[in-house]
Amino acid sequence: MLCDGLRCLREAMASDTEITAVLTAKGAGGRELTELQSSGAPVYGAPAEIFDYISPLKTAQDILFSCKIPAAREASAGARNIVLDGVQDPGNVGTAIRSAAAFGIDSVILIGPCADPYGPKTARASMGAVFHKNVVQSDCDGLRRLKERGMTLYGAAAGGGTLNFGNAGLSRASVAVGSEGAGLSAETLALCAGFIAIPMEPLTESLNAGVAASIIMWEMYKGARENYVNT
Amino acid sequence: MLCDGLRCLREAMASDTEITAVLTAKGAGGRELTELQSSGAPVYGAPAEIFDYISPLKTAQDILFSCKIPAAREASAGARNIVLDGVQDPGNVGTAIRSAAAFGIDSVILIGPCADPYGPKTARASMGAVFHKNVVQSDCDGLRRLKERGMTLYGAAAGGGTLNFGNAGLSRASVAVGSEGAGLSAETLALCAGFIAIPMEPLTESLNAGVAASIIMWEMYKGARENYVNT
Repeated sequence: MLCDGLRCLREAMASDTEITAVLTAKGAGGRELTELQSSGAPVYGAPAEIFDYISPLKTAQDILFSCKIPAAREASAGARNIVLDGVQDPGNVGTAIRSAAAFGIDSVILIGPCADPYGPKTARASMGAVFHKNVVQSDCDGLRRLKERGMTLYGAAAGGGTLNFGNAGLSRASVAVGSEGAGLSAETLALCAGFIAIPMEPLTESLNAGVAASIIMWEMYKGARENYVNT
Repeated sequence: MLCDGLRCLREAMASDTEITAVLTAKGAGGRELTELQSSGAPVYGAPAEIFDYISPLKTAQDILFSCKIPAAREASAGARNIVLDGVQDPGNVGTAIRSAAAFGIDSVILIGPCADPYGPKTARASMGAVFHKNVVQSDCDGLRRLKERGMTLYGAAAGGGTLNFGNAGLSRASVAVGSEGAGLSAETLALCAGFIAIPMEPLTESLNAGVAASIIMWEMYKGARENYVNT
């Protein structure tokens, strides 16, 4: 996979990820160069025009690197997971992975036509969390197998839900969030034990999918923090 | 201001916004054309190359329109407001405006070097909420005047806060959120009556600024909903 930015590179270096090459826009030197070299991968310099040509992103930062895609393990059926169903925007997928790291989610499970979690926009939006957080590319059969092993799956509903955050017991459950346009697929809906809606003002339609997933993960996290004293 | 997409246009039409012109990529016709014409503004067609050239966004949708910038009123000192301090990413500003509409925030107050709320990327990320929600471009002097009129201002802190969501009394307060890199400016910090932190896992640094603002607005909204029975 190809990533950009010093912050993402630091996150990759702090994980087990094998970095294969680092490219800098000419001008990197001194302390920064020493840091880049500590990744163990060869460091190349390139003039700005060539760097911009290689960069997959329009607003290129001044460091690009290639690395091995992190190995995913199976999601834990008894833990808190977030399922993204057909979330196509890489910014939203990356944001959800970042929030999953912040809120102690076990795995981010992607099903349906989601954005590539290892694409450069996703990695950037995740702020490197993609190197630390377990991301599983799966499908409805995969969810079904997790259910057989004891996973409780709820669905995030745009309209009225059947459960609220207080009584859903989210601290040991998984929640599926769909795309802003299409919502959850019929196949996913059929796997859900219940539905949760984030209450909002009348006449407002929906939240950004990354925000909706993050608010749900925040509520899952709050439920799980024994010492959390707030309401 | 220049916006794109049918969804944004519908939101503009449903508000008081004066639409001045609509441009479609050739091919719009029938029912859609009738809808576009109902905006009262002249509707022009353009071949795809010209349309893409005019569009300020890389991934152009098939409708562009120009409109008058919505008039802002003063923020209400006694209501719930969200203050964005130096949030430069237009996607984050737009996302926060969208969540502010969903969670019944009075005004989105922008101070410091924030993204233009009326730029095309912000309008798109707001999903048209920029036409409904009161957005105030202000500064620290403006915040100071609101404080003199009774506003309670809290700051969102990346590290440990002095308050938590349960005891901060957020339902009638305003909260300032800074940029992911710089946080709140020294001038803003000096105006805050206390600090709120969103608890998160050790070793995770921060949330996306649009997500952090949205989670805070969600907590403000929960505090204000009398019939909200969840913890």
